[in-house]
Amino acid sequence: MIRNTQEKTVIENAHGGIGKIEIHKKITKEDQVEGLSLFAKVVVSPHSTIGYHQHTDDAEAYYLLKGEGIFLDHNEARVPVKAGDLCLIKKGQSHGLENLTDQELEMIAVVY
Amino acid sequence: MIRNTQEKTVIENAHGGIGKIEIHKKITKEDQVEGLSLFAKVVVSPHSTIGYHQHTDDAEAYYLLKGEGIFLDHNEARVPVKAGDLCLIKKGQSHGLENLTDQELEMIAVVY
Repeated sequence: MIRNTQEKTVIENAHGGIGKIEIHKKITKEDQVEGLSLFAKVVVSPHSTIGYHQHTDDAEAYYLLKGEGIFLDHNEARVPVKAGDLCLIKKGQSHGLENLTDQELEMIAVVY
Repeated sequence: MIRNTQEKTVIENAHGGIGKIEIHKKITKEDQVEGLSLFAKVVVSPHSTIGYHQHTDDAEAYYLLKGEGIFLDHNEARVPVKAGDLCLIKKGQSHGLENLTDQELEMIAVVY
């Protein structure tokens, strides 16, 4: 099965963060793909963040494609991350992401 | 948890295909991440392929980052794909990928 949707959602203050992010969703829960709740490309605008938030029912991976940021890891550790890094949280843990730079940060987000 | 391994594996004739691919593995089964068996960036060299093969125990997603190819979908359908496309197979299904162009094809492969 191929998904090539070009749909784009713009979210301001994502999870209580600042600025805006764009989500290009390829798969969501509605698609009922076993083992996969979300597969999306996410663009975090310059000086924008995804607020620290908990995943009570699923786990998530962020894979950075472009740019640099600060990953807010479980236990609120602040970890500098860059393109090529994979940031994982388990079910029940929390995370967030800050792009404090002047360039966009692009990543793949997978909820599973 | 952050994974920023730079490890690269070169495979020739992957799953009976032609030419070579490079796999940059971020997560494998050995990491015991619940719900995720593999998260990797894969580079398929020009005029190289991943042979058609079955996933008996897991499902896989290919997300194309760069380049163009032919996705060999379940039931052996041949589907042209390009950057931005997500190619999914379910547990039990088969797939493969051909890069018949003069440029590299880059993708994210997620086994779950």
